[in-house]
Order: sequence, then structure tokens, then C-alpha cells
Amino acid sequence: MNALRESVSLAEEMVRFGARAKVAARGMGRSAPHDKTLALTYLADLLAGRERDILAANQQDVETAREAGLDTPRLNRLTLTPAIMDEMRAACLHVAQLPDPVGATESQWQRPNGLLVGRMRIPLGVIAMIYEARPNVTIDAAILCIKAGNTVILRGGSEALRSNIALATLLQEALAHAGLPADAAQLVTTTDRAAITALCKLDQYIDVIIPRGGEGLVQAVTEAAVMPVLKHFKGVCHAFIDADVDMDAALNIVFNGKVQRPGVCNALECLLVHKDVAARFLPMAGDRLGAVGVELRACPRALPLLGPEAKLQQPEDKGQEFHDLILAVCVVDSLDEALEYIARYGSNHTEVICTRDHVNALRFLREADASMVAVNASSRFNDGGQLGLGAEIGISTSKLHAYGPMGVQELTTTKFVVLGQGQVRE
Amino acid sequence: MNALRESVSLAEEMVRFGARAKVAARGMGRSAPHDKTLALTYLADLLAGRERDILAANQQDVETAREAGLDTPRLNRLTLTPAIMDEMRAACLHVAQLPDPVGATESQWQRPNGLLVGRMRIPLGVIAMIYEARPNVTIDAAILCIKAGNTVILRGGSEALRSNIALATLLQEALAHAGLPADAAQLVTTTDRAAITALCKLDQYIDVIIPRGGEGLVQAVTEAAVMPVLKHFKGVCHAFIDADVDMDAALNIVFNGKVQRPGVCNALECLLVHKDVAARFLPMAGDRLGAVGVELRACPRALPLLGPEAKLQQPEDKGQEFHDLILAVCVVDSLDEALEYIARYGSNHTEVICTRDHVNALRFLREADASMVAVNASSRFNDGGQLGLGAEIGISTSKLHAYGPMGVQELTTTKFVVLGQGQVRE
Repeated sequence: MNALRESVSLAEEMVRFGARAKVAARGMGRSAPHDKTLALTYLADLLAGRERDILAANQQDVETAREAGLDTPRLNRLTLTPAIMDEMRAACLHVAQLPDPVGATESQWQRPNGLLVGRMRIPLGVIAMIYEARPNVTIDAAILCIKAGNTVILRGGSEALRSNIALATLLQEALAHAGLPADAAQLVTTTDRAAITALCKLDQYIDVIIPRGGEGLVQAVTEAAVMPVLKHFKGVCHAFIDADVDMDAALNIVFNGKVQRPGVCNALECLLVHKDVAARFLPMAGDRLGAVGVELRACPRALPLLGPEAKLQQPEDKGQEFHDLILAVCVVDSLDEALEYIARYGSNHTEVICTRDHVNALRFLREADASMVAVNASSRFNDGGQLGLGAEIGISTSKLHAYGPMGVQELTTTKFVVLGQGQVRE
Repeated sequence: MNALRESVSLAEEMVRFGARAKVAARGMGRSAPHDKTLALTYLADLLAGRERDILAANQQDVETAREAGLDTPRLNRLTLTPAIMDEMRAACLHVAQLPDPVGATESQWQRPNGLLVGRMRIPLGVIAMIYEARPNVTIDAAILCIKAGNTVILRGGSEALRSNIALATLLQEALAHAGLPADAAQLVTTTDRAAITALCKLDQYIDVIIPRGGEGLVQAVTEAAVMPVLKHFKGVCHAFIDADVDMDAALNIVFNGKVQRPGVCNALECLLVHKDVAARFLPMAGDRLGAVGVELRACPRALPLLGPEAKLQQPEDKGQEFHDLILAVCVVDSLDEALEYIARYGSNHTEVICTRDHVNALRFLREADASMVAVNASSRFNDGGQLGLGAEIGISTSKLHAYGPMGVQELTTTKFVVLGQGQVRE
């Protein structure tokens, strides 16, 4: 009975979060660009002025988590440093200076009856952001949502609770300072995971939910949510080395894709090499990658062309997101076979072709189904900042609404605006 | 055990549908504009040449449904006539002639490192369309999906099964004639509703699911689906008559909105009148609407200004989609109160202001949250054809991906294409 009563009251609490967010969304929707800019620049000041308090709160979080045995990668993501605080401040100022995306009618056309029809860019409304214990995401996500005129309900991993409370206080202070509704950024402070399930049901208040974290979290939110989900699944990225290719450029691209930051979603996981170039390309690639400790898992045709440390590929190595210095390697007979392989084992994230052949480049761009497709460039460019979006809240690997990095623009939508002089329908 | 075995085999059958659709999607994605045009024009020919067979199959459906006691509105929607066949043919030719939406890079910019970054418009992929027993939707939905380079899995209401089989046969014939994969349009022929639930789980094959029909169907699909849903909920549309207004134009707009076709989602359900104009406007509106039998349900301030047949409004009349010749009427003190009312009782579908006041017009356009917001024009214009989109597959009332009528363009998405000369990330 107690558990039932608690879960009812938790659900009711989430309803209140939703209702407040929806009221605040109207205020944000009609806010002027200047007020949003002011909130973000003031937030940068607050982050500087209160740095000591925030780092102290974070220190407590880190100590508690360490005692509880949190693993090192997660402890690292939980830890705020003066350098990360600087980055958060820089992000506030950067997003403040981006062009305001909402309010303007982007295109307009006239109908035969004289109606002027246009599309006006507007905020999405209320965004629920569910993420792991990474306190900097609290600021990064909130400032993008605010810039786009949305309100956000933040639910971060429980290990970061003290840090998030300290940061959310600043967010609300900055909003109020600029005359914007403080409820435009609300933090859910309960650590009960049932809060997430409750939020997933509130489609009368929440326009979109964005899970950001491990595959389990994303899957759970996707299954429970009745509102649209913008999600970011895994990145199984391939590079195809075509027969006619600039060998040095291709080597650099493969090396950069695998080695620069192997733990991220736009790192390379598989190298596909055209049979006509395999005997020249693979020995060089094996040397270069082997020298920095990349483990190569090769198909039977590739194996003899690589160094003695290369291993024979197992079936599960295909389509695997290694998140590590491991690379699958396959020889293919043709561009068609490469495209077939990518269609089967890719994850719609990032696909690269290295080629000098114009027709093959165009075919790859058109036919490889991924949120970013590149010719002669590293997979590591699939990132909002690198592509020129200014900043990103995540990379969408599903096709609706946004496919690829989501910046401020992707946190908006359009509505039809119709200007008449009394027209009615015949 | 038998039921379990059946549902397992049904789920497996749906997996096969999904897998075939996904294979066909690659063929559609690389198809040339000409092939899609050819398929659609040939389909128009087939609809003419086989009209007798289709009408005969439909006649059987209608008779069976009548014997089973289907109500008249649904029998009407089930029935095909030579006139509806003409409309379906015209739709094929019209959609064939629309500009091809896919393949081009719509915008491109250069990064400081020389990378050219662009957005290429691409098909969504595999679309599952779940709809009621309206055989013309089989053609309307399929041709829009095909034009946009998608493949579609069609699951129509079971009462229309014979008609849908006849129509789907023509769809596949037309696709094959144009050298396109016949599996680009597949009809699910099982009448077991478990097929819908099974489709809702296939996010490895299906990119988006579109339920079109009653609120129960939409709700069920939304709750079960793990992939994105493009949905069309109810339309509770308001018209606000401002203090400074062209009285005749406003009367026409209200009359058209309520009377021209009261059973549809963009019909008016509620009239909000500024207090300064209520004493002049409402008696005229009452006369004009009363003359054609519209039942008026008025707030206490509006009631004495309307004829004797007007009724006092009950709380449930607010936010009600009457789908009938019934109109709620309220007097409000200001534009702010009207916007407050719409925020509370509207359904994000269509909102109209009648005004001569420029500032109020701009505020209403910006602040009323609906997929179409109109100044001095009828709510009935919220329709893909009327707004100039060419044709529509439905009207989205949720904001992600599409908000408002969804035409061919809304059945596509964009991916990032990156053209490099060997760039890697620093």
C-alpha cells in the first residue's frame, strides 16, 4: 500500500512539473530574442560567480559515488573541473550569440484566392530531457532549449543530484533576471526511477522527450513514452576505401576515425576495402593502426594482408560498436557489396567513402542510409559544432523530425500562418 | 496454445512484411523521378481499365458490411463510386506531376576547414499506414508514399478487405511496370487486430507509423508503437472576433467554418467574441447560424444576445469536438482572455482571429498554438490541398517532424552530406 501511495504521489508530482512547464512555455513562446540572450549571458556570469559552490556540491556527489563504487568512466563524467566550468560558460555565451530561430515566417506563398500562406518557426514547447549523471549536460541541454524558446524538464542521473540542484538554481535565477518564467527550466530532484516512467506518460504536457545515455535508458524511454522521442542510438560507422583512391588521404581518414577518440559514437568501427586496392592499402593501414595499438579483426581475405597481430573476424564483430581501439576489416568486391554491407550492419549514424571516382561518390552519398554521409572526410565530423550548427543536444539516428546532430533549429518546428481578407472555402 | 501459436505466426508474418519493405526501400531510395512518375500514371490507367472489377469487389464488401450492421457513415466511407474512382485517378495524375522531393541537396555551406556541408532530402524509408475501412485511402496514401520514395505497409479496416486487395494488386502491377520493387506497396490482408500490435513493435524495419481513423485507433497505436508516430488527433477549432472587426467578413468566416462541412476536423467548434462587439455581432451570428439549424450553446453573457433557441452552455461544451451543427459561444474581455481560453481548450489544430487590428493579428499569429493560425480566413483552409501542398496524407497535431497538413515533402527527411578533400578532425 505504501509503495502504491508513493507511486501515485510521484505521478501527481510529475503532473505538476508538466503543468508548470506548459504554463511557462506560453511565456517563453512570446519572449523577445533579447530576453533569452540576457538570460544566457547572465547565466555565464552566475557560473563564474558561484563556481566555488558548484564545485563543492559536485565534490560531495563525486565522493558519495566513489564510496558507492561507481566505475571510473562514470566518475569522470560526473566530475566537474574549473576547465569544464569554463566550457559551460563559453557554451552559454556561444548559444546566446546564435541567431534567434523563432518567430519569423520562413517562406510564404500566395494561393489562387489571394490567401498568403507561410510557415512560421516556433518552439517545440515542453521538452523532457532524461540523461545520465553528467552535470554539464544540465547546462548544455537547458541553454539550447531556452534559446529555442522551449521549456525543459531536466532529469539527470541521481549520482549528480547535488551538482544538478546547484546548477538548476542558477538556471532559474538567470531566467528570472531576464524576466522569463523560472519554470522554463525545472529539475526533477527525486531519484526514484519511477519519475521517468511517469514523465513518459504526460503527453498532455510534454511535446518531446529526449533520452541521452546508455542503450538501456534509451530503449526504456522509447518503449514507455507516448509522446515523440528524439533518440540517439549507437554509432556503427564504416569507411569504404574505393579502388581509385588517394591512399594517403584515406589512411589519414581511417586513422582519425578510429584513433582520435575511440569511445564516441562517430568513431569508425569497420573498414571496408575494395579488392583492387586491398593488397596495397591494407599493409599500410595495418602498420599505421597497429603502431598505436589498434586491434584489427579481419575477414579471411584481409587477414593475410595485415600484420601478424591481426585476428580472424568472428561473426559478432560485424555491426559491433566496439567503443575501443578495435576495428573490423573486410575486403569487398565492389561499391555495391559495400553498400549492401552497410545497409545490413550500419546503424544509420555515419558512413564514409574514400574515392576519386565521381560517379561512385554520388552513388554513395545518395544510397548510404545514415544521418551523415561523407566523401573523403573523417566520420568524426558528425557533430553539431563541426558541421556548423553551433551546438548540439544529441545526434538523432531516427529519421523523423531530425536526422543527425540536433542544434537550436532542430528544437523548433513550424506552423502554418494564413493571412486573409475574409476568404472562405467554396 | 492455439491462440498463442497463431499470434506467434502472425508476428512472424509481420516481420516478413517489414523485411520485404526494408529491402524494397533501398530500391525506392535510388529510383529516378521518372520511374515514380511512370508508376503513378500507369496506376491511373489501371484504375480506369479495371474499374468494373474494383467496384464489384467493393460491392461485395459493402453488402457484407451492411448485413453485419455497419452504421451509415461508415458504410458511406466504405463505398466506392465511379465518381470516387475518378478522384483517385485524378489524384494519381496530380501527385505524379508534383516536383520530385528527393535527391537534391537543399542547402550547402562551407566550414572553415574547407568541408562542404549540405542537407540532402531523402525518403523516410518504410511507412506503416493504419487506417479504417476507406478504400480510397489505400490509393491516396500509397501514391504519396511512393512519390516521396518510400515503401508503405498498408493495413486498412477489415470491412474493406476485398476492395483493398483489388486496389493493392493494381499498385503492385504499376510499380513492377515502372521497374520499381512491387514490395514498395504491401497490403496486410489478415483481419486480426493483433497484426497492428505486431507492426507497432517492428522498429528495426518501420521508420514511421501513421494511424488515421478514430481516436481509439490513434491512441492504441500511439501507446503500442516503439517507432515514431505521425498522428492526427481531434480538431477543436476556435474563431475569435476582435473588437475592431469587419463584421460581414467575420460572419462569413464563422458561417463557413461551422456549416460548410461540420463533420470534419477543421470545422469550427467554438466562437469567442470580444465584449465590445458582442452586442452587435452575436444577434447577427445567431440569426445567420440559427437559420440553417446550428445549435448554439452560449455562456451566460452571450445567451441573452442570441435567439430564444440558444441554450446555456454546460462545462463539457468547452473544448468539445461536436462534429455536428453545434457551436459553443463565449464572450471574452480581451485578446488575452481569448488566447488563454484557446490555450486551455484548443487541440493545437486550427485557430482563427477576425480583426482589423494589426498588433492583435500579429500577437494571435505568434501566440495561438495550433498547426494553422489564420487572420481573417476560414478554419476550413487547414488542408494540404487548400494550403498549396498538392495533397496530404493527414494533419499532424503533434509538433515533431510535421505540424499541420502532411504532403509529399513531409514524407521525407534530410541527411547531412559532407564533401571533403581528405579533412580529418583536429
